[in-house]
Amino acid sequence: MVRLKLSIELDYDIAQPGCDFILNLHAAHTRHQTVVNERLELNQNLQQQLFVDPATGNRYLRLTAWAGNLRLRYDATLDLAHWMAPPESVPEVPVARLPPQVLGYIYPSRYCQSDRLHKLAMREFGHLWQGYGRVKAIQEWVQARVKFAQNTTTASTSAVDTLIEQVGVCRDFAHLMIALCRAVNIPARFATGIDYGADPALGPTDFHAYVEAYLGDRWYIFDPSGTAIPMGFVRLGTGRDAADVSFATIFGTVRSAAPKIAIEAIADARGVLVVPYHCNQAISTDA
Amino acid sequence: MVRLKLSIELDYDIAQPGCDFILNLHAAHTRHQTVVNERLELNQNLQQQLFVDPATGNRYLRLTAWAGNLRLRYDATLDLAHWMAPPESVPEVPVARLPPQVLGYIYPSRYCQSDRLHKLAMREFGHLWQGYGRVKAIQEWVQARVKFAQNTTTASTSAVDTLIEQVGVCRDFAHLMIALCRAVNIPARFATGIDYGADPALGPTDFHAYVEAYLGDRWYIFDPSGTAIPMGFVRLGTGRDAADVSFATIFGTVRSAAPKIAIEAIADARGVLVVPYHCNQAISTDA
Amino acid sequence: MVRLKLSIELDYDIAQPGCDFILNLHAAHTRHQTVVNERLELNQNLQQQLFVDPATGNRYLRLTAWAGNLRLRYDATLDLAHWMAPPESVPEVPVARLPPQVLGYIYPSRYCQSDRLHKLAMREFGHLWQGYGRVKAIQEWVQARVKFAQNTTTASTSAVDTLIEQVGVCRDFAHLMIALCRAVNIPARFATGIDYGADPALGPTDFHAYVEAYLGDRWYIFDPSGTAIPMGFVRLGTGRDAADVSFATIFGTVRSAAPKIAIEAIADARGVLVVPYHCNQAISTDA
Amino acid sequence: MVRLKLSIELDYDIAQPGCDFILNLHAAHTRHQTVVNERLELNQNLQQQLFVDPATGNRYLRLTAWAGNLRLRYDATLDLAHWMAPPESVPEVPVARLPPQVLGYIYPSRYCQSDRLHKLAMREFGHLWQGYGRVKAIQEWVQARVKFAQNTTTASTSAVDTLIEQVGVCRDFAHLMIALCRAVNIPARFATGIDYGADPALGPTDFHAYVEAYLGDRWYIFDPSGTAIPMGFVRLGTGRDAADVSFATIFGTVRSAAPKIAIEAIADARGVLVVPYHCNQAISTDA
Repeated sequence: MVRLKLSIELDYDIAQPGCDFILNLHAAHTRHQTVVNERLELNQNLQQQLFVDPATGNRYLRLTAWAGNLRLRYDATLDLAHWMAPPESVPEVPVARLPPQVLGYIYPSRYCQSDRLHKLAMREFGHLWQGYGRVKAIQEWVQARVKFAQNTTTASTSAVDTLIEQVGVCRDFAHLMIALCRAVNIPARFATGIDYGADPALGPTDFHAYVEAYLGDRWYIFDPSGTAIPMGFVRLGTGRDAADVSFATIFGTVRSAAPKIAIEAIADARGVLVVPYHCNQAISTDA
Repeated sequence: MVRLKLSIELDYDIAQPGCDFILNLHAAHTRHQTVVNERLELNQNLQQQLFVDPATGNRYLRLTAWAGNLRLRYDATLDLAHWMAPPESVPEVPVARLPPQVLGYIYPSRYCQSDRLHKLAMREFGHLWQGYGRVKAIQEWVQARVKFAQNTTTASTSAVDTLIEQVGVCRDFAHLMIALCRAVNIPARFATGIDYGADPALGPTDFHAYVEAYLGDRWYIFDPSGTAIPMGFVRLGTGRDAADVSFATIFGTVRSAAPKIAIEAIADARGVLVVPYHCNQAISTDA
Repeated sequence: MVRLKLSIELDYDIAQPGCDFILNLHAAHTRHQTVVNERLELNQNLQQQLFVDPATGNRYLRLTAWAGNLRLRYDATLDLAHWMAPPESVPEVPVARLPPQVLGYIYPSRYCQSDRLHKLAMREFGHLWQGYGRVKAIQEWVQARVKFAQNTTTASTSAVDTLIEQVGVCRDFAHLMIALCRAVNIPARFATGIDYGADPALGPTDFHAYVEAYLGDRWYIFDPSGTAIPMGFVRLGTGRDAADVSFATIFGTVRSAAPKIAIEAIADARGVLVVPYHCNQAISTDA
Repeated sequence: MVRLKLSIELDYDIAQPGCDFILNLHAAHTRHQTVVNERLELNQNLQQQLFVDPATGNRYLRLTAWAGNLRLRYDATLDLAHWMAPPESVPEVPVARLPPQVLGYIYPSRYCQSDRLHKLAMREFGHLWQGYGRVKAIQEWVQARVKFAQNTTTASTSAVDTLIEQVGVCRDFAHLMIALCRAVNIPARFATGIDYGADPALGPTDFHAYVEAYLGDRWYIFDPSGTAIPMGFVRLGTGRDAADVSFATIFGTVRSAAPKIAIEAIADARGVLVVPYHCNQAISTDA
């Protein structure tokens, strides 16, 4: 089990009163991710409405803020009791046997136009053994083609753009991998989180985007940008793609500072410290 | 109350055995749409798996078919007890008060790239009174610009394409209207159904696509292609856009004939016949 | 030398008088393609304006037609004295030494967005020996990925679409190959013509689209859709892409029948008949 | 007559030797724009190749630079003897009478997808009187919809993007206006220049992009971003769109500083100083 302690600080200057925020800062409640403790602090005295999406376990905070400065700080300690499996034991699930609530993740979405990629995906991946290894092959295909580079893409960059231009950030890697999985009928979704062990050469710790693919009977984690250690991902939210899961959706005019994020592995109640490491098992934090 | 009797016949030639179908042919269960009776006939003896999506009331039938000919016929009688309201009494719901399960419908989706249309939508509709009338204004804006023409668009045509090229079919009108609603933060979704009263000049009765917008405390019906009578829509499914709600998703190689669809208004148990008509009320079949 | 005899018949129904046509039906005048004789017949008595583009040798016919039926028939006999070279002797031309009038063909155009493909093209072709063989490798890459299928694309389909969707007709193959050549700074242009020896399985003889790449000191022919015999191509026009060279640009509302096209190899004045064949030389009809 | 004195300074750090440049820094030679004197200075001793495009009068400088720092400074004095005409006297030219060398400018190009905008343009502008005023109406339509904002667009942003997202810089305004003109068969092209009188609130003087439309018997100037004074535009180059006319096309890896540009009106040989002003005449610097 991994115990992680994280903090997220957000800082906004709000032009007008009555600015609505929907924040997905709270760590998700999943079968293998437990919140040991958490605390949210705000510098404005606001009514807070926290709700949990029953389908995904995502937690959303709604606020309506005053004009002026708004600072939020979220602190949490999480226990991750990963499900792990030998990759070769994890099969794909035939479409006819996908659980109903998973079916939606084989359809195309805003940034993952899998409907346009069937021929390409079948040519590249159609002949591979159908299991965890095929999803890994898709991840490696994306990693081999796309170059990680800050400030090369925008909020409307999609999987098709990334396939063409072959450059982007973690979000773009995730969208392309998801689109290719769906194009061969493997359910895949977009996950956001805080990533322990991010490569400092890529800049300060930030929100991370990665992929979960439905294999066997659960959602397994893949990190197509390859910039961090999957065992150290604290999951905030999952959805079809970045359109569904933003850490902050803001309805108003604000200026925002870069978020300040810290994460570290700490010892658990028994004093045992497990530091996340790159492992070659299939890992999952969700059923 | 309107009582409608409908039949849908589908006919496929399947190249290989083991072809999976996900069909959304069954009329949705909603608060105001009741299935009086229904029957599904198949010419293949297949295991059928019918499930209801708890969030939308959509019903999906899963089959795995043999090679050769597959014919399906669905017959149903439905009662529609529409919710009706004077348009001027139906307000928009501020983002801060949208129910959590409705929030997702303000985000962009595969065919409705509302994220790219904020400036345009604000310029065109930002100054209007916030209520049913604003959604109606969006519908009329779309109708005034887009020309209905068969075979002008494809399965990957999106709202942005329709805005540029100004031509399409019911599905394209719906996508553009949805994208513009979301761009001003009005939740909107894609609905499919069978439409009583379709203009015969546009071809034989077919599956119809229209829009539901969340106003007041429920989903109201809009028909941006203006080709049928909203009071006569039997709802099959709703979703983010056409990526979510197809009457048939097929995993295999098939040839398909054009569907044969019939719908008529019939008398209810008391012998009362209400024929759907164009009314100037806001109407809804769902909470 | 190859002598070819061709005829093109076009048939239009014109809704209103004063319909302008710009036709590129006349075989181009090039250094290696000579018009032995030609004749144009029209069923309307119209003023004809024929002009030659000095840069490309394209010939354009301008007409303003009456309402009603317009039929055109173009007959011509052409001599093609191909320039041929061993592929391994044909180098690329460094950008610094490209003739000024060729430079424009390394820039992106409407359907060939080479500006977006630099990384992809460099990864696939950047390491290859710079010469005819590299362009051949690009052609083979396109052929291996794209499937020829009628009615899968539209007039606005571009190279980027074809790269993603991997299906199309000769025009789409040409656009993708051109875009990839330009992305590695090889000048490439779109050519239209009549193709001797088209595979009858693909339908009746039609206008063909292919590619010319500037190598050594001239424009060499490539046929990325691989559907015909390059030695039998009669060139009508060349341009940046299909936006520049349409066999008919029509300013008005017309209905058109499918063009009727015939082409055959005939004996020359000395009685010698050379039938076009697939040869493994680099061939060119232009300096 | 306006006499303008300008200087352009460019500064590059070049990673590897043998870096090719194609520069369009020299003021174009046109019928109404005369170079009184000019001088180019380089800090590297390089062979310079200057050529003039016969079709447009654009002048291109080709260099192959050494690794290290490359600085260029271009100084010139220009006389602009504008052709001016009362707007109401300037008609459109029917397609059937367009000069052959102008025809290409009604076709779509990389960033100006006029082929997709016919319906929209006809609905907005099809009913207007066909002359200078219609082009002015297109310019005003673009200005009313698009917001000028730095750093909102990229090198691959096109007219269709700008129509949808309604934000951009001078280049984006020009592309959209050009696409709309072509969509109603008015020849339009992209022009680059140095703009006297640019609004200092928008940043330091920079290269400017504007539009020329072919009306009457010449190319008239339009400035859709409305950020400068057309009478003070020194023309560097014209082309289909930004794909054709870049002030610097660089084949290699360089870092570049922002260009330093200065322009001022000076007295002519007789001591007469004419300062460019906003005039309500149709103006042209080219036949």
